[in-house]
Amino acid sequence: MLIVKKFGGTSVADKERIYNVAARCAEEYKKGNEVVVVLSAMGKQTDILLAQARDINPNASKREIDMLLTTGEQISVALMAMALDALGIPAVSLNAFQVAMHTTSVYGNARLKRIDTDRVRNELENKRVVLVTGFQGVNKYDDYTTLGRGGSDTTAVALAAALHADACEIYTDVDGVYTADPRVVKNARKLNEITYDEMLELASLGAGVLHNRSVEMAKKYGVQLVVRSSLNNEEGTIVKEVVNMEKMLVSGVASDTNTARIAVIGLEDQPGVAFKLFNHLARHNVNVDIILQSVGRDGTKDISFTVKEDDLEEAVATLERHRGGSLKCQKIDVERDVAKVSIVGAGMMSNAGVAAKMFEALYDVGVNIKMISTSEIRVTVLINAAHLEKAVNAVHDKFLMAQ
Amino acid sequence: MLIVKKFGGTSVADKERIYNVAARCAEEYKKGNEVVVVLSAMGKQTDILLAQARDINPNASKREIDMLLTTGEQISVALMAMALDALGIPAVSLNAFQVAMHTTSVYGNARLKRIDTDRVRNELENKRVVLVTGFQGVNKYDDYTTLGRGGSDTTAVALAAALHADACEIYTDVDGVYTADPRVVKNARKLNEITYDEMLELASLGAGVLHNRSVEMAKKYGVQLVVRSSLNNEEGTIVKEVVNMEKMLVSGVASDTNTARIAVIGLEDQPGVAFKLFNHLARHNVNVDIILQSVGRDGTKDISFTVKEDDLEEAVATLERHRGGSLKCQKIDVERDVAKVSIVGAGMMSNAGVAAKMFEALYDVGVNIKMISTSEIRVTVLINAAHLEKAVNAVHDKFLMAQ
Repeated sequence: MLIVKKFGGTSVADKERIYNVAARCAEEYKKGNEVVVVLSAMGKQTDILLAQARDINPNASKREIDMLLTTGEQISVALMAMALDALGIPAVSLNAFQVAMHTTSVYGNARLKRIDTDRVRNELENKRVVLVTGFQGVNKYDDYTTLGRGGSDTTAVALAAALHADACEIYTDVDGVYTADPRVVKNARKLNEITYDEMLELASLGAGVLHNRSVEMAKKYGVQLVVRSSLNNEEGTIVKEVVNMEKMLVSGVASDTNTARIAVIGLEDQPGVAFKLFNHLARHNVNVDIILQSVGRDGTKDISFTVKEDDLEEAVATLERHRGGSLKCQKIDVERDVAKVSIVGAGMMSNAGVAAKMFEALYDVGVNIKMISTSEIRVTVLINAAHLEKAVNAVHDKFLMAQ
Repeated sequence: MLIVKKFGGTSVADKERIYNVAARCAEEYKKGNEVVVVLSAMGKQTDILLAQARDINPNASKREIDMLLTTGEQISVALMAMALDALGIPAVSLNAFQVAMHTTSVYGNARLKRIDTDRVRNELENKRVVLVTGFQGVNKYDDYTTLGRGGSDTTAVALAAALHADACEIYTDVDGVYTADPRVVKNARKLNEITYDEMLELASLGAGVLHNRSVEMAKKYGVQLVVRSSLNNEEGTIVKEVVNMEKMLVSGVASDTNTARIAVIGLEDQPGVAFKLFNHLARHNVNVDIILQSVGRDGTKDISFTVKEDDLEEAVATLERHRGGSLKCQKIDVERDVAKVSIVGAGMMSNAGVAAKMFEALYDVGVNIKMISTSEIRVTVLINAAHLEKAVNAVHDKFLMAQ
């Protein structure tokens, strides 16, 4: 069996944890399996490097930031190779140049295009555990790129796909994917299986266990993922195309407080207004989530939408810049103290009344809904952030306690 | 003009010093020159990484140590590019893969074989300051190698040779090359010029200003070096083939306490004994310095030699291992408290009596000589380490005060 394992920064934060990971990999190797391990930078290393960069130049180019950050994973893989060696397991560390991981040109947020497998295969044939730097790649200019936060998951999935691995295990600091955040919802429980689509919705809603792009890639190439804890031997959660074991209407409840609402009030009611508005934002890489349009007073219209709170400043600045120019409106309102609550489940496609049941749960605990958005397998509502905990618990228990 | 500048770890140890170096490079760039800058890892970074490696695995493989250490220079060049950018100077950082710096395969002590200049030239044509990681290379297996301590000097000289640079400036924390270590000899003074050969002898004797291999390479490719301070604008010392300005008998006095004496007593007096002895040491990479052979009592012979104190343990262990086998002797003595004092000067080739004058100086201050070694432009004596300071001062003032 060829197994790709991915460990995040917390799993390699210090000597003890490095040896914990090394021991797990050694165990796998001793079973006679071929083992490829993708690692992130140790602990807070990436943040420390970023702070160093900001201290030197707050407007440092993304090209140089990537050059700086990629050292983090290289340190992790080198130290892990040394730990495995100390345990008597032959190992070799490889960075993005050595593998080689080809990406698009965009610094800071590149996409993997192609992974050469020759070097990795050679090392595996020589009976070595292969340690690969996550999160990083090389673009056509022969420059380092990074895949964006959480990119190590994507590296692992892409490697598993390229190597036709038998399994891709994503180790994290939780046991698997839960029906809700266990820190918020006391009745949350671990799922044994979940579909790619459900996981995608959960990831994009801030459930945070897996990087969105890694799930997309796993779905595309049919890489079966296992999400499990690096701290114990629990089974974890399997992410795959079709889930047979559990036929649940709703698989999980997710919440996200990294959201803010912008209301553009009193826009001219003319064709192309919405296009112009969102085009400006797209050009500044501001992703818009829920959108709601309503007819305002005196023949104008209002458009409300949510953005990540991180992007709020950029979004408002962009809109203000174009206000009076191509974007004529009366005012721009901002609301920060909001949160999203979502239910996700492949089962809801064929089942009417799921949304209504969610609204009922919220009504029961007196939570007001500000905006609603739905997809085939998801219902999301925007609520006051102060009500988040009771809302998530109420929704979770409505759907996931009864079953 | 194309100028290669090299700055060591202390010169880039913190934000302030990074900006100090950036300002110097900016100044050079603004004169209309093409600027290539070779950097070492920041401050004690290499030592910190080495300590981390030892903590994980005291016997870590050299391949993985090199993989770890090369991150140090990459951090330096990325941060320097950011600093130059902040000063309005376009800059780009390149590591050993990007340049590409081809070396021999030996990890930890590789030799540069070939430097591709395409990428560097392209970046220079695009009017960028090019920041290159010192000390590191890539071998034929596509693995990182390092050039050994002080290897950044070699990187700079090799780059200057490959690019046919007009100047190669080595910035350090001293003003230039001195007639003796100013911390030991109060009358020491800075040299304006020195020949490659003299510099080579001084470097190998622990004068420590320039890495030996960098001087060898500079001599081989005729790269004129300037050694100067990164902290002031003093002229520094020029290292070149022929020195015209100063016709000194002796250019400098060097001392080295990283030395120990091993005496192998009572060896069989047969052909091949010396060969076997030093062959064993060479196989364990122990470099031997001064060698002295004398006929002992009862038809045996004694061989004494000096090694670096760092290598002493390895040397003695090697000899003990072969004792009784291919190496028959009565005993092996070790003396640690010794030091070397040397005078170096291209002028002494054509001048008899230089050695005698040195011995006289030592006799004047009552220092006993344990061993003597000479080359065309050098005389070295081994003395008791406790007498080092007075010996160096006496020798220095004998030759270098009178002129």
